[in-house]
Amino acid sequence: MHLMRIGAPGAEKPVARIDDLSYVDLSDIVSDFDATFFASDGIDRIRPIVTDRSSGGQVAEFAGERIGAPIARPHQILCVGLNYSDHAAETGQAVPTEPILFNKAPNTMIGPNDDVLIPRGSTKPDWEVELGIVIGKRTSYLESVGEARDAIAGWVLVNDVSERAFQLERSGQWVKGKSAETFNPAGPWLATLDEIDDVLQLDMWLDINGNRRQTGNTNTMIFDPFFIVHYISQFMVLEPGDLINTGTPPGVGMGLEPQVWLQPGDVMELGIEGLGKQRQEVRGPR
Amino acid sequence: MHLMRIGAPGAEKPVARIDDLSYVDLSDIVSDFDATFFASDGIDRIRPIVTDRSSGGQVAEFAGERIGAPIARPHQILCVGLNYSDHAAETGQAVPTEPILFNKAPNTMIGPNDDVLIPRGSTKPDWEVELGIVIGKRTSYLESVGEARDAIAGWVLVNDVSERAFQLERSGQWVKGKSAETFNPAGPWLATLDEIDDVLQLDMWLDINGNRRQTGNTNTMIFDPFFIVHYISQFMVLEPGDLINTGTPPGVGMGLEPQVWLQPGDVMELGIEGLGKQRQEVRGPR
Repeated sequence: MHLMRIGAPGAEKPVARIDDLSYVDLSDIVSDFDATFFASDGIDRIRPIVTDRSSGGQVAEFAGERIGAPIARPHQILCVGLNYSDHAAETGQAVPTEPILFNKAPNTMIGPNDDVLIPRGSTKPDWEVELGIVIGKRTSYLESVGEARDAIAGWVLVNDVSERAFQLERSGQWVKGKSAETFNPAGPWLATLDEIDDVLQLDMWLDINGNRRQTGNTNTMIFDPFFIVHYISQFMVLEPGDLINTGTPPGVGMGLEPQVWLQPGDVMELGIEGLGKQRQEVRGPR
Repeated sequence: MHLMRIGAPGAEKPVARIDDLSYVDLSDIVSDFDATFFASDGIDRIRPIVTDRSSGGQVAEFAGERIGAPIARPHQILCVGLNYSDHAAETGQAVPTEPILFNKAPNTMIGPNDDVLIPRGSTKPDWEVELGIVIGKRTSYLESVGEARDAIAGWVLVNDVSERAFQLERSGQWVKGKSAETFNPAGPWLATLDEIDDVLQLDMWLDINGNRRQTGNTNTMIFDPFFIVHYISQFMVLEPGDLINTGTPPGVGMGLEPQVWLQPGDVMELGIEGLGKQRQEVRGPR
């Protein structure tokens, strides 16, 4: 299934995408794609309604509604840093021996086509196309990497927007450059596990103003998503609906020579095979 | 006012403490001390009920109920690192030129007297008595430090429990050593702003098994709470109910010679003037 949330910010309704034209309206059945939904086996509950429409699913046509992030604001957004070996190289940093974790403020999450705002005082705003993991159940101390699959609800396309001066030049700890409002476009849909045959063979790309900047494939990840979930579960309890951004391939603005930073008026377009596309216009600060 | 939440985990009711023996039950008036409460001027709404009991506040006596954290699970827990100059010295790190920020998973928050669990694989669990700031309204881009007071709901005692090996020896970014379950005891109460005459003149202390380990006063903070809120608001949007731990004075286990780490069976007792006391028993991992 492709789970989506459509409508005005804060008033999105949960739907399951059939194709580019139509969806199954789930708003009478689930209140939101949130922690309660995932924790109560919501994906299994809606599956018969979505797949067998004679069972009561209301089919409707998209009518230009705004697309929201496909999950409600999560308990936390975790990110894995430097998780593609050639991206680590372009930033001048060593390939990590175990996953580097950092956080973004959960209120950074916006829809896939919403505007991205450059924060006040920003000098080095940058882009990062990433595969996001959505956690499906309360998870801690997984015994093996093999158990991680059962903890995952699905996959989502994310732009892990970053402010490099805030991140790297303002007294350590990356959260400072990752948490500005609008800095985490997510969606257009959450692809449930069965939708993606091999999550480690997905092409990914990002364009700025129509120029290809990032080209990659999840097959060059250093730590794969199942390892990441197993790993994080040793340090903290993951909650249903938590989002984990798994790192970006080469081609960020920081890695170009000369470096290139986002400017008001820029357009970011990005995609991952099977997870849809995003398009954000970049605007100046509020 | 001293706002408290009492009762079983996940089923706490909101009350206002009168003294050690009695409280005003607010559970018919507010559902919880959460983002909705703070955003809707909840503190101003309950004040007449708490202060003028003829207006309908139900007075009851404490009957040994468990005390929960005084706020619902926040949108985020932010922490300021190395914010006391002599603590920075004991960790061997330079005094920061601007606040170091990092996150803890919000689900680390527990009541002030709940057990603290040493996580699996832990070798260096440590303690940190801290002053916590509770944010009272959605806050971004404050124009001046002077505006910060209006963004703060009040103050809370926190134990910012830390695992130093996870924090410092496992590929960077401190969140990894700050986010284990039970690692953020908070409470017993949220003191509203009017309860504390001078937040920069509060004695603070922490004992392990009855031995004084930390002794400090908020007057040795490098960055004061109003500066911190103003500063963070330049990088992200603070939500009502967010918690900011403002750093710890000297005397953590990492700073002792030889270093001392928490062990199962240890008892942590800590307090800050005007914000009450905590007592946690330390247990082994689940």
